[in-house]
Amino acid sequence: MDLAELQDVIERTYGERDRARGVAATVAWLTEEIGELAQAVRKGTHDERVHEFGDVIAWVATLANQEGVDLSEAIQRYADGCPRCGSMPCACP
Amino acid sequence: MDLAELQDVIERTYGERDRARGVAATVAWLTEEIGELAQAVRKGTHDERVHEFGDVIAWVATLANQEGVDLSEAIQRYADGCPRCGSMPCACP
Repeated sequence: MDLAELQDVIERTYGERDRARGVAATVAWLTEEIGELAQAVRKGTHDERVHEFGDVIAWVATLANQEGVDLSEAIQRYADGCPRCGSMPCACP
Repeated sequence: MDLAELQDVIERTYGERDRARGVAATVAWLTEEIGELAQAVRKGTHDERVHEFGDVIAWVATLANQEGVDLSEAIQRYADGCPRCGSMPCACP
């Protein structure tokens, strides 16, 4: 799946329920998932890390859906290197 | 860009520097970006939200690179609906 396909499948799986709970609840859930990812990175197995990375991206996708943001558009800033200094590799001080 | 292309461009842009700083520093930066996204969602413009979603995905990508995690594989759990209940839409209680 690319990011557009992910946003579509997440919309069809969770969109109605997540919108009913509201954006603040989605931010809270995403924060919880970031905590689980941080723990998996610190002391988890590779499979647990894969699991938590998937959950974080899924919650970012549902928040993006609620905000009407296209994640493929959002990452385009990075396509040609660092958006701040314009270089690849980044040459920011 | 799909997620594999993003991970590649992020690796070439930031990989060496991010690895030198270490995983804990990347987790801290990602957390900072989550805070900026939360603020943009609460009181930002659409363009500011697009910007912050891009930054969050980019930091997730650099952390995934450091951990040897393929984000395309990680999101595959969601391809057929909710990985917990197996339904689309999700039917979890």
